[in-house]
Amino acid sequence: MSSHTEKEFQDLLKEQASYEEAIGLMAWDMRTKAPKKGIEGRSEVIGVLSSKVHEIQTSDQMKAMISELKGRTSSPMMERAVEEAEEMYLRTVKIPAEEYREYVTLQSRAESVWAEAKDNNDFALFQPYLEKLVDFKRRFAEYWGYEEHKYDALLHSYEPGMTVRILDEVFPKVREALTGLLSDIQASDNKPDPSVLEGHFPKNQQAAFSEEILKRMGYDFEAGRLDETIHPFAIGLNQNDVRVTTKYDEKDFRTAVFGTIHEGGHALYEQNISKDLAFTPLADGTSMGIHESQSLFWENFIARSESFWKNHYPVFKNYAPESFKELPLSDFYKAVNEVKPSFIRIEADELTYCLHIMVRYELEKALIGGEIEVKDLPYLWNRKMEDYLGIIPSNDGEGVLQDIHWSGGDFGYFPSYALGYMYAAQMNAVMRKDIDVDECMEKGNFKPIQEWLRANIHKYGKMKKPLEIIQDVTGEGLNPDYLITYVTEKYQNIYKLSK
Amino acid sequence: MSSHTEKEFQDLLKEQASYEEAIGLMAWDMRTKAPKKGIEGRSEVIGVLSSKVHEIQTSDQMKAMISELKGRTSSPMMERAVEEAEEMYLRTVKIPAEEYREYVTLQSRAESVWAEAKDNNDFALFQPYLEKLVDFKRRFAEYWGYEEHKYDALLHSYEPGMTVRILDEVFPKVREALTGLLSDIQASDNKPDPSVLEGHFPKNQQAAFSEEILKRMGYDFEAGRLDETIHPFAIGLNQNDVRVTTKYDEKDFRTAVFGTIHEGGHALYEQNISKDLAFTPLADGTSMGIHESQSLFWENFIARSESFWKNHYPVFKNYAPESFKELPLSDFYKAVNEVKPSFIRIEADELTYCLHIMVRYELEKALIGGEIEVKDLPYLWNRKMEDYLGIIPSNDGEGVLQDIHWSGGDFGYFPSYALGYMYAAQMNAVMRKDIDVDECMEKGNFKPIQEWLRANIHKYGKMKKPLEIIQDVTGEGLNPDYLITYVTEKYQNIYKLSK
Repeated sequence: MSSHTEKEFQDLLKEQASYEEAIGLMAWDMRTKAPKKGIEGRSEVIGVLSSKVHEIQTSDQMKAMISELKGRTSSPMMERAVEEAEEMYLRTVKIPAEEYREYVTLQSRAESVWAEAKDNNDFALFQPYLEKLVDFKRRFAEYWGYEEHKYDALLHSYEPGMTVRILDEVFPKVREALTGLLSDIQASDNKPDPSVLEGHFPKNQQAAFSEEILKRMGYDFEAGRLDETIHPFAIGLNQNDVRVTTKYDEKDFRTAVFGTIHEGGHALYEQNISKDLAFTPLADGTSMGIHESQSLFWENFIARSESFWKNHYPVFKNYAPESFKELPLSDFYKAVNEVKPSFIRIEADELTYCLHIMVRYELEKALIGGEIEVKDLPYLWNRKMEDYLGIIPSNDGEGVLQDIHWSGGDFGYFPSYALGYMYAAQMNAVMRKDIDVDECMEKGNFKPIQEWLRANIHKYGKMKKPLEIIQDVTGEGLNPDYLITYVTEKYQNIYKLSK
Repeated sequence: MSSHTEKEFQDLLKEQASYEEAIGLMAWDMRTKAPKKGIEGRSEVIGVLSSKVHEIQTSDQMKAMISELKGRTSSPMMERAVEEAEEMYLRTVKIPAEEYREYVTLQSRAESVWAEAKDNNDFALFQPYLEKLVDFKRRFAEYWGYEEHKYDALLHSYEPGMTVRILDEVFPKVREALTGLLSDIQASDNKPDPSVLEGHFPKNQQAAFSEEILKRMGYDFEAGRLDETIHPFAIGLNQNDVRVTTKYDEKDFRTAVFGTIHEGGHALYEQNISKDLAFTPLADGTSMGIHESQSLFWENFIARSESFWKNHYPVFKNYAPESFKELPLSDFYKAVNEVKPSFIRIEADELTYCLHIMVRYELEKALIGGEIEVKDLPYLWNRKMEDYLGIIPSNDGEGVLQDIHWSGGDFGYFPSYALGYMYAAQMNAVMRKDIDVDECMEKGNFKPIQEWLRANIHKYGKMKKPLEIIQDVTGEGLNPDYLITYVTEKYQNIYKLSK
């Protein structure tokens, strides 16, 4: 026991968390409200505060505290906090300071070059930057270390415990099931008619409906807000200030409605992390994949289900154009679940979405592993799109250049999206043993669902690792069968496929 | 020359400015957008960042840099920056650390007690806190030092160079002129009819008109925004992000329109400080009084003038209720300039406003000087209100408890409001020698006015001290005659007083 030092350690964590909260608010502001001329100065301020966070994480003081406290803390919470701090310390100090500085400079340059390259469909412009980023990340993976595959070291940043070995067993199963289902769907004579969803939806009506749904989900507007932005996100500044942003397309309500529910799922997670973890690195979602499981659970398993719309379609009609008055629920339900291969990941339907992830996973794994080179990406991207989705992008802007992730060096992030979907399917199956989820949705009573998620997932924050959450909640490890069963049953019904 | 250390000094100032910018954004957010449950955590974050600012200002590193650089800088800008840093260093380290901590704790407690006392008209509740605050400030004044009057040491925090000797010469002249004018006005048979301004003004119409006026003033919306709040303010986060807030009263457009123009005047100052001063303590208004001169110049000398409304009354009608269609400009102009003693400072008209300041100045000067005691304030407040304004508050909520300032220990701040008004009158008189201000207003062309203010005042930031600005701009020191002449002429006309 060394309670004096434990208090000092908490003070240091609080200082770090304070900088992070200030950075978070500045980031939110830049993406929603900030006047454009102020951005340059604000970015410098973010730079100064970020370097303070980095200083704390790698300080001699932090090192001494970790070594003094490890195994001698007064609570499991403190033990996990020390573990997290050590993990961050080690990952950061393993990279030589000079190399890290070069990497950060490259990142910010690469992002603006990427944006230009994307706008001009000019992969060649971005290629040299991407090559350097891949080189850095290959070296970082060596510094960090790994057991079987270099890419595992990168996966660890987003999904601790996840490996190529696991993904290579699971992803192909999902891919085969989905591509099989997709070809059945494309051959079906019973396709939904998405044109029934067309119409003019005034922004304020969409906002009002989105707010109503967020409230029903249990999102606490006294501990958050909903704002408009270009690229929607949710951000937890502290557990009592978790903000959702959305985008309104007046020609297509789906962008805002499903987008808000998706971000609302992320926000519910952060609002419901135990308050005991405040001002520590544990007051955060445990991984990108678990975070995504929460947004996808609400977006797909709840808001794209027939039971949900049984209750909410009449509510929706209050905000929707006249034309929906006559549209039967079943046509509406099918139309919002139309499956159609498309080029852009973030616009993909529930079924083809995972195939977009497979394309990215296979390419970045091979890149980091040194099996392919950056210059080959456009060609390989288009081949995989053709193989899995049956379509070929007409330019790199709607192909290999579409996502921002690689320009920031974020290799290993993409699998989280598909993992989140699988996690959500597993959770959904288990939840249905405890709760009559369909009845909840039909009654518009989300309290039991929200409470189940809080008690089993949300409250822990980073107290449990992602695979520990999955094991504790579902009694088994990652299992893709739940997702496969879910999509198969759902789309067999919608498209009247033979079983 | 010691250019290496100069760079280090600038880096330290930039770190300090970065914390201040982050704190500024958090403060803006708390007063406009933040969900209420998040406020508590956010306040703690502000506390952490504020203590970092305090640490930097009083650090041994800062002390060493100041002593090494003073008199050896490479530019006048660096010289002033060193001076400012030294001033802040000395004022801060002169107060024993333990005493300062006690004071900060008292401040935050006192503010909430004050709010409760105000709501319940219960001065006795607030009295012990106010007594302690006065004691602290008397001691701080001793630590800081002064030549003639203890109160001078406090004045210095808000208006460097200002003294009781100057104020006691100037304020009585203004007070006598205003009280004389007020009694003539009250005896006049030609009073404006303020009931003509009544009507329902939808918030969005007021917002649209306010925005239009801000744009005409030259406020740059690409370097700022306009939001709604309860207690309006302007805040400069950096020179390219200076935000204005306002409050809408749907029964009385004057709150938002004159309020927005007032805050817009503050904002124009900060937007036009020379960009060379960025990330130093010089990138700020030089004093509270000069800042107030800018807001009052726009609010009173521009927006309450007949010339202004010659151009803008037709524009205003586009946003106003039908009833204004028939209301003649002269009746409108007189009504927005109605003089009527009232209890609440922030709701006072242009003429009686200064009398409210005199009440406060005389009381706080005597308090700090030890001539009166806190317990006597309610009685003395009411006597002075009766003497100067001819009205007696019916309770302390609309009397001595109305302002937040004293609960934060801000003794010495109030004179800035009256000084700002006098400065503005002096500037206005000089400006009229260079520019045909009335013609500018009648044409709605504020460019020459804005440019004059930028070149003579704004661009300097803190490069010049307040009395230096006044001397350089007007060729003389503080002179109350300009204000007296201005109000006398204006109100003789409106109320048709004998001259």
